[in-house]
Amino acid sequence: MTPTPQYYADYLALNQILDAQHPVSFESPYTPAHDEMLFIIIHQSYELWFKQMLYEVESVIEIMKQPALNDNSPEMQTAVHRLNRVNTIMRVLVHQMDVMETMTPMDFLDFRDLLRPASGFQSWQFKILEARLGLRFEERHGKDYYTSMLKPAYTQQVKEAEDLPDLLSLMNGWLERMPFFEAETLWQDFKASFTETKGNLPLFWQEYRHRLVQSLADAESDNLSHFDRVMGFGSESISDRLSPAASRSALFIMLYRGFPMLQQPFQLINCVLELDEQLSTWRYRHMNMVHRMIGHRIGTGGSTGKNYLKGAADKHYIFKDFARLTSFLIERRHLPALGKTMEAKLGFFHG
Amino acid sequence: MTPTPQYYADYLALNQILDAQHPVSFESPYTPAHDEMLFIIIHQSYELWFKQMLYEVESVIEIMKQPALNDNSPEMQTAVHRLNRVNTIMRVLVHQMDVMETMTPMDFLDFRDLLRPASGFQSWQFKILEARLGLRFEERHGKDYYTSMLKPAYTQQVKEAEDLPDLLSLMNGWLERMPFFEAETLWQDFKASFTETKGNLPLFWQEYRHRLVQSLADAESDNLSHFDRVMGFGSESISDRLSPAASRSALFIMLYRGFPMLQQPFQLINCVLELDEQLSTWRYRHMNMVHRMIGHRIGTGGSTGKNYLKGAADKHYIFKDFARLTSFLIERRHLPALGKTMEAKLGFFHG
Amino acid sequence: MTPTPQYYADYLALNQILDAQHPVSFESPYTPAHDEMLFIIIHQSYELWFKQMLYEVESVIEIMKQPALNDNSPEMQTAVHRLNRVNTIMRVLVHQMDVMETMTPMDFLDFRDLLRPASGFQSWQFKILEARLGLRFEERHGKDYYTSMLKPAYTQQVKEAEDLPDLLSLMNGWLERMPFFEAETLWQDFKASFTETKGNLPLFWQEYRHRLVQSLADAESDNLSHFDRVMGFGSESISDRLSPAASRSALFIMLYRGFPMLQQPFQLINCVLELDEQLSTWRYRHMNMVHRMIGHRIGTGGSTGKNYLKGAADKHYIFKDFARLTSFLIERRHLPALGKTMEAKLGFFHG
Amino acid sequence: MTPTPQYYADYLALNQILDAQHPVSFESPYTPAHDEMLFIIIHQSYELWFKQMLYEVESVIEIMKQPALNDNSPEMQTAVHRLNRVNTIMRVLVHQMDVMETMTPMDFLDFRDLLRPASGFQSWQFKILEARLGLRFEERHGKDYYTSMLKPAYTQQVKEAEDLPDLLSLMNGWLERMPFFEAETLWQDFKASFTETKGNLPLFWQEYRHRLVQSLADAESDNLSHFDRVMGFGSESISDRLSPAASRSALFIMLYRGFPMLQQPFQLINCVLELDEQLSTWRYRHMNMVHRMIGHRIGTGGSTGKNYLKGAADKHYIFKDFARLTSFLIERRHLPALGKTMEAKLGFFHG
Repeated sequence: MTPTPQYYADYLALNQILDAQHPVSFESPYTPAHDEMLFIIIHQSYELWFKQMLYEVESVIEIMKQPALNDNSPEMQTAVHRLNRVNTIMRVLVHQMDVMETMTPMDFLDFRDLLRPASGFQSWQFKILEARLGLRFEERHGKDYYTSMLKPAYTQQVKEAEDLPDLLSLMNGWLERMPFFEAETLWQDFKASFTETKGNLPLFWQEYRHRLVQSLADAESDNLSHFDRVMGFGSESISDRLSPAASRSALFIMLYRGFPMLQQPFQLINCVLELDEQLSTWRYRHMNMVHRMIGHRIGTGGSTGKNYLKGAADKHYIFKDFARLTSFLIERRHLPALGKTMEAKLGFFHG
Repeated sequence: MTPTPQYYADYLALNQILDAQHPVSFESPYTPAHDEMLFIIIHQSYELWFKQMLYEVESVIEIMKQPALNDNSPEMQTAVHRLNRVNTIMRVLVHQMDVMETMTPMDFLDFRDLLRPASGFQSWQFKILEARLGLRFEERHGKDYYTSMLKPAYTQQVKEAEDLPDLLSLMNGWLERMPFFEAETLWQDFKASFTETKGNLPLFWQEYRHRLVQSLADAESDNLSHFDRVMGFGSESISDRLSPAASRSALFIMLYRGFPMLQQPFQLINCVLELDEQLSTWRYRHMNMVHRMIGHRIGTGGSTGKNYLKGAADKHYIFKDFARLTSFLIERRHLPALGKTMEAKLGFFHG
Repeated sequence: MTPTPQYYADYLALNQILDAQHPVSFESPYTPAHDEMLFIIIHQSYELWFKQMLYEVESVIEIMKQPALNDNSPEMQTAVHRLNRVNTIMRVLVHQMDVMETMTPMDFLDFRDLLRPASGFQSWQFKILEARLGLRFEERHGKDYYTSMLKPAYTQQVKEAEDLPDLLSLMNGWLERMPFFEAETLWQDFKASFTETKGNLPLFWQEYRHRLVQSLADAESDNLSHFDRVMGFGSESISDRLSPAASRSALFIMLYRGFPMLQQPFQLINCVLELDEQLSTWRYRHMNMVHRMIGHRIGTGGSTGKNYLKGAADKHYIFKDFARLTSFLIERRHLPALGKTMEAKLGFFHG
Repeated sequence: MTPTPQYYADYLALNQILDAQHPVSFESPYTPAHDEMLFIIIHQSYELWFKQMLYEVESVIEIMKQPALNDNSPEMQTAVHRLNRVNTIMRVLVHQMDVMETMTPMDFLDFRDLLRPASGFQSWQFKILEARLGLRFEERHGKDYYTSMLKPAYTQQVKEAEDLPDLLSLMNGWLERMPFFEAETLWQDFKASFTETKGNLPLFWQEYRHRLVQSLADAESDNLSHFDRVMGFGSESISDRLSPAASRSALFIMLYRGFPMLQQPFQLINCVLELDEQLSTWRYRHMNMVHRMIGHRIGTGGSTGKNYLKGAADKHYIFKDFARLTSFLIERRHLPALGKTMEAKLGFFHG
């Protein structure tokens, strides 16, 4: 039996952690650049947190991978809790950029040339994190460029990560499997106010679409055809990361989030939207920081620093298919009542 | 003689402040929307802080307006202190966006339609703040659009603010007046390592330009012609918000910030760069928040919300002429020594 | 029908808000103290947010006041959401102290004497907030002192607030009404590993107490008698803000938070613990700020500033009866299984 | 010549950093506790930052150790800049506590017992940091207890750190050496409004003491005798970490901070006061977090967790001798004018 640790220092492997800072400028024949230590430690701190974020995201993926989530298990709650933690970490990482900004451009110059070709874009963990969340190779800004600076072994790892089922795909599958609209008996008490039919939509969606039409401002008529394409109600549907069936479930969850069974699913969707915002803010502050540090000079990795980062910040919204659903919400007081059978289905057992 | 205030509540006019929240949805015939109170209070809080920021910026402008700043007065220190305060406020305002994000899109919808055509873009104080810092009408994203939603009286105020000397122009003037390079006697001990001359540049700049050439990576040769245009050393100079003369002083300050007389000027430049970053982060988070709240729907002010904000966030870097100077820095150990006459000039009196 | 607002400025009553700053030092015969504006605006901003927090807390109290909460309504979720918002606001308010700290002691002195006897302790809204959450008069540090500086009308309001049912009492009632342990049929499948009985405890608690005993370190034997007193299992029980019956429910919720029906109750408990921490951090930073600003001098309200604040920070943990329950948790893998009847009761209906 | 690093991963020794997490619960025969990874990584991140803070503080100590600081060198500016960085780091570390708080007490219990006797109090780096700043053994809460849990080798390091000249002592020496009050010729233009003399105080202090008397409220008369003791003007002076001579210089700097030569010294004093506040807030949040996590149970290091931390938070204000000087400030408009000789001495050379 493994003995439990005697000392905090051993338990945390602090010898190993605190012996891993080797500023190049401290070695002969260079002149020690005071701020190189900060540069190393802040990046190491970021990488420690990337490891933790990946660890949490992988554990959420394990949960979402199951063919059926048991509503009565704490699994969904656990997934939400862990993604909230990831968001809490991201907020600290955004804040941590303040520390980097205490390094002035002149201080950076003191050791900057020693770093080439190593570069700040080479965090394979961050790239794996993006991939595991759902960013696909073909959606990346700069495509192959993004791995060109990595060690071959890490490029390999990123590629492998891109081949695994990611969180977004798994959420798509989970949403597609939701049985809300198929089972007609569940809707037996649902009363439509609108009698005409549009094609053969499920009754709920016929009614909802009708109410959405009424809510749209004149200038927003494009919105309806967009709705039809996203939800699969038109002749041509959009084929994005969320399928029409998944989009329908997700919108339903957003609308009826108050029912017990939809509370955790709603929080899960909210978590990934929040994560997209945090990642985006992080990329944006990173871009601004790089701009302030090196102006329009070429980054240590050979790229034109700011432009690459700006492209990524503008483009890498992983969960944007959820975000766009907010265009299709209607006011709560106009929501159709679901009928008592469906409402019972979404609630607790009071036998 | 005015009596001093008896009570905290009277001193702060809290009756007036706390009686200024009138949610429209709370009035007949509407249904009270719980979150409308938050919407009002957060905007009022933002406006209070905009007032404070304007107050600080105006006081800095008063200082910078003087034909000559007395180095031995605390004025420059005061200007730096107050701009640092503005930055501290901005960081809180960025953070405060977290509170807005506790309002979900469905919660917003409950009262959103009652707000049209009032819109979140209508903060004339923020527009005046941008103008007083140095954002010119012709640099604005969307040009006239940005005031089209304001009350005519406020549009007038914004226009008037745009006609006043702004912080950036005053900083330009202050930098242009710096006597560093003209007085030849100050440079009598300066030793150039480079004997060839480029046109009739001041000796210091001949030398600096020579050293910059040596520091540029092969891929950065464009940098030199950019340098010449910005610093006014070529046949055609760029005419931007910072004139060539001002750019030369600013670069000199960045390079030799360690000398006592340049410490406060360096901090002043740093403050405005930091402010640009904070403003930019604020606009960016605002944009993301709006996107999450209304998707691609039309904003309450009739604009396509996110796109306007994105345009502004990308474009409104007020102090970018300072930021670009970082491209022209060279390593500290390659900096030319200034010679003892100049060094004495930049230091304290030891009589 | 009330017309919807034309302009942002009117909707937000900005004339009223932005016309409420009247620094005393700006009036004859005083010398304008630049930082008095900041002092006023930051306090006004705090008061705006206190109003918002009170508004949210009152709405949660309305929910908790009901004789029975419907598990299938979104009410509990709404209560959690709003308390989370209060916590998000508190975090910003703690951060906002950074702005106050940009005022140096010398800057404060410029107008400090004009404020006497008005004082920063006179926020009746904050006192009402504390009272509505559950802080009782007799638990207050300094007792009557805390209202002695208020306008009589506000003292009255604070006293009235103290007489209303507060959030803590309502949570106590809600927890007491939980039917977990009385209904014997629910526990028909519960298997105790321990056959001896302690008095006539419900079976679950006999078993749990047995397992707790096993988990305690030798040095922690006091813990057991504390447990018995808090949970009402001994001859004498503690009569605190949470009754023994409520403490039992709360501990049960913490232990079995994974079951769907306990998820929102667990989050509610977590929210108030988080709120206590935030309030406490706010008081602490406030105390440090006052100390830095005036040293050991007497506060503008006549108190010895720092000491009063320190007393309050140390003493005013409103929800400490929840916090102490964490001493009685045991490891998850040692938790008794509840049996399938009870588990079904805590889960969703799958008819 | 050492080759510059090819890859980011090698430069940062990421193999070593990312291979240092070994949760005990992941090993046989234990059950893996998901959150143990977080526990390890957050502590490693704290220790990385403690290393960086120590590195910055040591570099400031090197500067302050010099027998005479050259006003015309950038050294004082560098010291201020680096302490500001330390404060920026501390703010992130305080914020980072939010991440720890995503771990619930139940989650901690899953591996808590495996950690005994290792404990969170065993950060020798933090203890060395406190010692290098100026916390003496005899001022520590709990005295020997604080090292009893460390590995002997680390106890030794802490003891050695306590024997070195610390930042506070060096600041004391630097302040004592300031030549402001001795050189009578500097004060030749100083005009006292007050003709009586108190013993043989320097003219400036006679005058200042007179004005302080006038500024004190009736209830503050104790303040004067405190002033005399701290400044060494009475029969018995306090012998604290700042000597009377150093206290006089420090107060003078606070009062006349506007003069160029006092700007950086003022910022230095401000930095250490800010640092004390940040350290104190960190200890306070740590205490609250521990309380929430383990209630009144015994900490993993065997202490009664919260109480130790509370004692330390209340007692360990390292720079309190600076803080108390704020009690002795008077209003700016009552400050004695220094006379032109002294003012020239504090300003720039305009030869």
